[in-house]
Amino acid sequence: MGCDIIEQARQAFEAGGGRSVALPSDLADCHVVVVLVVNAQQVESVLFGEQGLARHLTPGSLVIQCATVAPAFARELGERLGSLGLAMLDAPVSGGAAKARSGELSVMASGDAGAFEKAEPVLDAMAATVYRLGDSAGVGSSMKLVNQLLAGVHIATAAEAMALGIRLGLDPETVYEVITHSAGNSWMFENRVPHILKGDYTPLSAVDIFVKDLNLVHETGRDLALPTPVASSALQQFTAARGAGFGREDDAAVIKVYQRLSGIDLPAAANDPEGA
Amino acid sequence: MGCDIIEQARQAFEAGGGRSVALPSDLADCHVVVVLVVNAQQVESVLFGEQGLARHLTPGSLVIQCATVAPAFARELGERLGSLGLAMLDAPVSGGAAKARSGELSVMASGDAGAFEKAEPVLDAMAATVYRLGDSAGVGSSMKLVNQLLAGVHIATAAEAMALGIRLGLDPETVYEVITHSAGNSWMFENRVPHILKGDYTPLSAVDIFVKDLNLVHETGRDLALPTPVASSALQQFTAARGAGFGREDDAAVIKVYQRLSGIDLPAAANDPEGA
Repeated sequence: MGCDIIEQARQAFEAGGGRSVALPSDLADCHVVVVLVVNAQQVESVLFGEQGLARHLTPGSLVIQCATVAPAFARELGERLGSLGLAMLDAPVSGGAAKARSGELSVMASGDAGAFEKAEPVLDAMAATVYRLGDSAGVGSSMKLVNQLLAGVHIATAAEAMALGIRLGLDPETVYEVITHSAGNSWMFENRVPHILKGDYTPLSAVDIFVKDLNLVHETGRDLALPTPVASSALQQFTAARGAGFGREDDAAVIKVYQRLSGIDLPAAANDPEGA
Repeated sequence: MGCDIIEQARQAFEAGGGRSVALPSDLADCHVVVVLVVNAQQVESVLFGEQGLARHLTPGSLVIQCATVAPAFARELGERLGSLGLAMLDAPVSGGAAKARSGELSVMASGDAGAFEKAEPVLDAMAATVYRLGDSAGVGSSMKLVNQLLAGVHIATAAEAMALGIRLGLDPETVYEVITHSAGNSWMFENRVPHILKGDYTPLSAVDIFVKDLNLVHETGRDLALPTPVASSALQQFTAARGAGFGREDDAAVIKVYQRLSGIDLPAAANDPEGA
């Protein structure tokens, strides 16, 4: 059973052999529900909105919350669901659309033993790796936030480094070859710089996602009185990319901020000789 | 033949079977000279200082310049040596003391074909990988600078992420395990966070090195009118670490800046139960 407010998504799901519904409350008969949406507002809407699911679920059912949310929100959510007799796994995922399709996500999960047991067949179908991080909500979301801090900064830094290399007259393909074999490498540099080299900013993961996630890092740091200056500088670059109109492009498009402010030439797309 | 102003280094070199001298000018009979010092000031001193080597070398000799310097400095150096009839390879290295010892450095080199030919037996002994990046001085130093931008930011970001994880109550060892298998990983995260986990800040590469190298990034960006805000925020964290007295500790000690400003507990060294 799948639920999406977008009809096209429901049709694709049905074509793949699933049954679909348009309203969260229509999932009331499910005993395990995976909530995989963009942010805390959407989690709130799906579970506690006007057509929200939480009050319709049978007590004892399990909600697997997979969105990237503030650890404090995840903790409160666990308590609110608990007060309705519902179990929750705080289980943000990593791996993007490709790994979701192949059932090879990484899941950073926390919750009690009963929740993990009930979740097991579902997680087995979704994930290649499930990290069991603790017995209470919030731990999974904390780990995801740490990962997003690193991932977001590494993408902005990859863009900044490529911009500097191009400005210095280096061949972008050679920079990629050397850096991916050097101490400056990161998972994100290796994964995202090819988008820049191809001039292909088709969104696999959009700029707007890191505007959101680095704002979560910033707000969490603020609430804990822990300064995060490096993450904040990366956040400003993603915010600038969004402000310049690239919010829905691939997150590697953060390099266009550097292009606009320095006049460097970026590699052009094969089908777009004028440049992206 | 080896030259070092520090007697202890000369003794160690002799004990290893080498011949050593204390003054650069005493290397006058060498036809290939590797200059591996900390910064441009030292390169200047070794080659053009009072006991400088350049004017004593036989024309046709080769200088392999391995320090991390500004690309503009490397270009000028090539011209100055050229005017004395000397060839130069602009050949910064990567890999640290461990890879230097085992002869497995990475070399990011540029220079003309004759310089590469003359350098070959020496580079074969020093390096596992030699990137031939172009035929003029400055290209090797440009690539090294791009690598150092990434490496420096990744170390500061690893520290910031570990500080956030600790502040959120995550187990530091678990953060390391999860992140090194996730999209947030970097070469530097994987390499430096173990120092934090062991509370061991014995300098393999010191905080002061990244104060220097990220200042080079900043100055190069300034001269080219290319903003580098993420590198600049990392630079401020290394500058703070130096200001707090950790300049000669391992660069992973940049996490102590976050400790001082948030009161988090860092893992203690095994032999230091009070914490580092």
